[in-house]
Amino acid sequence: MERPRHQGMAKNTYMRWRLPLVCLLWEVAMIILFGVFVRFGPEADAHWEEEKQKNNVTSDIENDFYFRYPSFQDVHVMIFVGFGFLMVFLKRYGFGAVGFNFLLAAFGIQWALLMQGWFHSFENGKILIGVENLINADFCVGSVCIAFGAILGKSSPIQLLVMTLFQVTLFAVNEYILLNLLHVKDAGGSMTIHTFGAYFGLTVTCILYRPNLEQSKDKQGSVYHSDLFAMIGTLYLWMYWPSFNSAVSEHGDAQHRAAINTYCSLAACVLTTVAFSSMLQKKGKLDMVHIQNATLAGGVAVGTSAEMMLTPYGALIVGFISGIVSTVGYVYLTPFLESRLRIQDTCGIHNLHGMPGLIGGIVGAITAAAATEDVYGKEGFIKAFDFTGPYQTRTPSVQGGFQAAGIMVSLLMAFAGGALVG
Amino acid sequence: MERPRHQGMAKNTYMRWRLPLVCLLWEVAMIILFGVFVRFGPEADAHWEEEKQKNNVTSDIENDFYFRYPSFQDVHVMIFVGFGFLMVFLKRYGFGAVGFNFLLAAFGIQWALLMQGWFHSFENGKILIGVENLINADFCVGSVCIAFGAILGKSSPIQLLVMTLFQVTLFAVNEYILLNLLHVKDAGGSMTIHTFGAYFGLTVTCILYRPNLEQSKDKQGSVYHSDLFAMIGTLYLWMYWPSFNSAVSEHGDAQHRAAINTYCSLAACVLTTVAFSSMLQKKGKLDMVHIQNATLAGGVAVGTSAEMMLTPYGALIVGFISGIVSTVGYVYLTPFLESRLRIQDTCGIHNLHGMPGLIGGIVGAITAAAATEDVYGKEGFIKAFDFTGPYQTRTPSVQGGFQAAGIMVSLLMAFAGGALVG
Amino acid sequence: MERPRHQGMAKNTYMRWRLPLVCLLWEVAMIILFGVFVRFGPEADAHWEEEKQKNNVTSDIENDFYFRYPSFQDVHVMIFVGFGFLMVFLKRYGFGAVGFNFLLAAFGIQWALLMQGWFHSFENGKILIGVENLINADFCVGSVCIAFGAILGKSSPIQLLVMTLFQVTLFAVNEYILLNLLHVKDAGGSMTIHTFGAYFGLTVTCILYRPNLEQSKDKQGSVYHSDLFAMIGTLYLWMYWPSFNSAVSEHGDAQHRAAINTYCSLAACVLTTVAFSSMLQKKGKLDMVHIQNATLAGGVAVGTSAEMMLTPYGALIVGFISGIVSTVGYVYLTPFLESRLRIQDTCGIHNLHGMPGLIGGIVGAITAAAATEDVYGKEGFIKAFDFTGPYQTRTPSVQGGFQAAGIMVSLLMAFAGGALVG
Repeated sequence: MERPRHQGMAKNTYMRWRLPLVCLLWEVAMIILFGVFVRFGPEADAHWEEEKQKNNVTSDIENDFYFRYPSFQDVHVMIFVGFGFLMVFLKRYGFGAVGFNFLLAAFGIQWALLMQGWFHSFENGKILIGVENLINADFCVGSVCIAFGAILGKSSPIQLLVMTLFQVTLFAVNEYILLNLLHVKDAGGSMTIHTFGAYFGLTVTCILYRPNLEQSKDKQGSVYHSDLFAMIGTLYLWMYWPSFNSAVSEHGDAQHRAAINTYCSLAACVLTTVAFSSMLQKKGKLDMVHIQNATLAGGVAVGTSAEMMLTPYGALIVGFISGIVSTVGYVYLTPFLESRLRIQDTCGIHNLHGMPGLIGGIVGAITAAAATEDVYGKEGFIKAFDFTGPYQTRTPSVQGGFQAAGIMVSLLMAFAGGALVG
Repeated sequence: MERPRHQGMAKNTYMRWRLPLVCLLWEVAMIILFGVFVRFGPEADAHWEEEKQKNNVTSDIENDFYFRYPSFQDVHVMIFVGFGFLMVFLKRYGFGAVGFNFLLAAFGIQWALLMQGWFHSFENGKILIGVENLINADFCVGSVCIAFGAILGKSSPIQLLVMTLFQVTLFAVNEYILLNLLHVKDAGGSMTIHTFGAYFGLTVTCILYRPNLEQSKDKQGSVYHSDLFAMIGTLYLWMYWPSFNSAVSEHGDAQHRAAINTYCSLAACVLTTVAFSSMLQKKGKLDMVHIQNATLAGGVAVGTSAEMMLTPYGALIVGFISGIVSTVGYVYLTPFLESRLRIQDTCGIHNLHGMPGLIGGIVGAITAAAATEDVYGKEGFIKAFDFTGPYQTRTPSVQGGFQAAGIMVSLLMAFAGGALVG
Repeated sequence: MERPRHQGMAKNTYMRWRLPLVCLLWEVAMIILFGVFVRFGPEADAHWEEEKQKNNVTSDIENDFYFRYPSFQDVHVMIFVGFGFLMVFLKRYGFGAVGFNFLLAAFGIQWALLMQGWFHSFENGKILIGVENLINADFCVGSVCIAFGAILGKSSPIQLLVMTLFQVTLFAVNEYILLNLLHVKDAGGSMTIHTFGAYFGLTVTCILYRPNLEQSKDKQGSVYHSDLFAMIGTLYLWMYWPSFNSAVSEHGDAQHRAAINTYCSLAACVLTTVAFSSMLQKKGKLDMVHIQNATLAGGVAVGTSAEMMLTPYGALIVGFISGIVSTVGYVYLTPFLESRLRIQDTCGIHNLHGMPGLIGGIVGAITAAAATEDVYGKEGFIKAFDFTGPYQTRTPSVQGGFQAAGIMVSLLMAFAGGALVG
């Protein structure tokens, strides 16, 4: 029952043994490491009945599962369908994009559960996992999918797996520095996921420069259907982004707020993308690449601040700006990067994740610095920024400074890590 | 990195400046209006910690977010993927359908948040929004997507944006008359969304009549894949319709009931659609257009009554009838409307939303009129129809009368509004 | 507004009257049976207000709707989009696969609500339904969709409807024997859904053997896009499988655990599928059929044990093995079955559901037999296996034995039922 195979998917004949070996050995390593370290967290363990009594939890619905599982599934769709199909807009790499994205994400989430677990969920020698860990693993892999967008078409599956291994590791270190050492808020990952992922990928692609990549770009089938497939990716990312930015926020008002802010920002972003795409093209026609990509910049750019009191109009402003920046990037910056700096950004991730991620970090720093007890309420203020324990004396402006430092750290980690891996 | 553009997407050369200007100016207007009016509702505001204590809310899970967010995401998918891809069955307009639907919906939800907010969530000079407002904004835009189905291929993006502006405004007025003045129940929007949207769109298309539209219909690519894309739209609408009809129902049993009724009605509708499609075609072959559209009529037709005690068999009967009416409409009524009344109903919205919407309104009126305390329970009866305050003396039969009046008002608003906009 | 029709979709000219008649008469029968038997369960009935007071339920969020509805929608997507589009990888049957799947599932869920209702939700002469019944009806139909995968291209819509009628009936009987008589745990349906569905379908296809089926297989359009459509099916099944396996588990930790185990198993499965697909093909290229199918075996193979304390590394091991077994099955077993045993397994369901289902049953039996109070906690142990009432003296090893018996019963029912229907 043999069937035809597609170009772009595994051309290397040497791979016959190398890819199977890498997959099998790494998976065995995962099993051993999971066996030694990973256990169910208290809310997923059968002991929860006793746990509930101990903590006076009166109802099963108080299980974190019910707070986060719907968002988890939306994020899952974004990583596997959203990022996978978005890249189909490059007709040549259609199936490879979806298939390789599937492979690297499936490996990446396992390694991410371990790496993030050691940093954040490690208790008495065990990593205790629950639904929040699954979301964070998906987030971490999202950052790899972003970087993959820059090197699409230039790397074998094994190179992708190696990149995934390193990038997940560095992601977890960077995340630990930001969230734990700098005590920075970044629920939607403008800094940890988008800025880090994009500049990591760009550094790698800069090193993997291939002068003749562009020429072979024209091998392609139906443009029309590729664009419709890509719109499936775009729309799922666009629709579920409110879940992405709210998935790991605090229970209650913070999740609620993050979803609303993201919804507003994304809506505004579509209008400015259409406006600038139409304005900058000859004859006012719309460019499909802009519609498929820049419309998402609004979600990236409220990643850090979505759970804060950004307010709906603040979100509209952020979306307004990021749609413009992203579209202008596609028109002017991507060609410039390619011709002058030899950075072949295959999917334009600098425009969709790089610059909007930086905007997101900056907006987050400003929103944090501008926070007052009046706007948040006394208890809401403490809860929103977790100004407890060693941080109870931190002021909003200091928090804003740390948020800004977080952007810098993410950029440095991305450049250093990308150079190392490249 | 220029790429080919598709027909149907922005042919007008004059548009070069007009479309960007409209998008930018309107978005600036949105920002200003949001800045003046829109704030987070109490459950999305950081003050919620204090709010909880004041109202003796013991758990974060009591936040409306957890009651409605999963349904919201399903509705979101219906509006952007469902309606967008459904229209791809018209091969000629494939990408334009998805892209323009995206643009008008992104603008529409912002304007709907304002319009509906002024009518329903206005307190002390501010519109306080939460997840329910997001759902209602999506609903309102759903009505515009329906109307868009009638004029697909006959209007420029700017005309669509203008139509969206007016239709959202009229939708909000009509909704206010029905829900607040007539105190009518219409959780799934048979009247407010489907009847209003369909007859509004039909009135507009009647005025925009183009004699030679039909002739150019044959320009098209792969029929086969267009049908598969359209099935994505169909299936997502079909699968998520239980969320649509239950999304804004009362917490608890009403949401539960609305989902079950809709599930049953849709299942029955598929069988009668297949039966009549096969029966009315030469040689018994099935017509793809029927499968893609008429199978959804069952969801439309229980929109009003889904949250009532329609009972599962009642839902089956409604689905049974609406599948037949809708399929027969595609076979006989659409050609008749076009040839005699010059109404070019491009997507057949009269069959999918118009007639089933009217059925939905009537079924709702009958179900309300037939309500008894015995069937609903004493408290359930009051809760289901909100017979409190000034309405506590209203009887079921009076309620039925008001429901019927709601259908009439929706029709009148649609005709008047459509004529105005057209 | 006539449009072209596709091959595979209803070629039979005799069908003109038979298909409509079957659809209409059966739907009328459903309405009558629903009218006599089906009513809303207490949590979907308007009397719930009084029910709440009687049972001291303090919040609307305690309604089962909020525990299960998000999972229900995911399962719904798996049945209608997942199974439908997965089968599009057979280019010849693309639209027929999606369309017929739609028809049989829409009929099947109604009949399943009745059959399962009589066995499990029958009180005082009425079947009381709620969201859990909807999920179970979808599960039951999932089993029919699996069997459909074996006979795709060999049967008319009427034959499919007849098969659905019988298979749903037998499914309900088998499920009753397993869950009620043997008191077996099978939340994800490794035995009841996958093993039963696969061997039922294989028995039917064996009887419907058509020698010349293979030859006509080459009629096909664009391979490339068919593979992308099939990946939509694959990915939605893969992403939502954690919802599938956790949808009807006990509230709280069991649902949480089932989702985590499934997530882990599926991730491991992707890597071994890629490894073996690459290893067993000439030149190390990957076979799309494996990526589209065998990557899902991990979800099937933890169906029974997902809600038990399988632990994340246990799940990885199960995924590891099932990916290998499934891929090897596609390469060696499917050709063997076809040439020697005349079993034309069109979609390879033996590799995706048959063998992994058996593995799932066995893993479930072992996991149950290995359960201890230490691992589950005293109360968790009783809750996990429902060792109450007449079963309070059952030991884990006895439970393991009954689980193994459940596999045998499912196989026997499948063979006997399939032979009967075939």
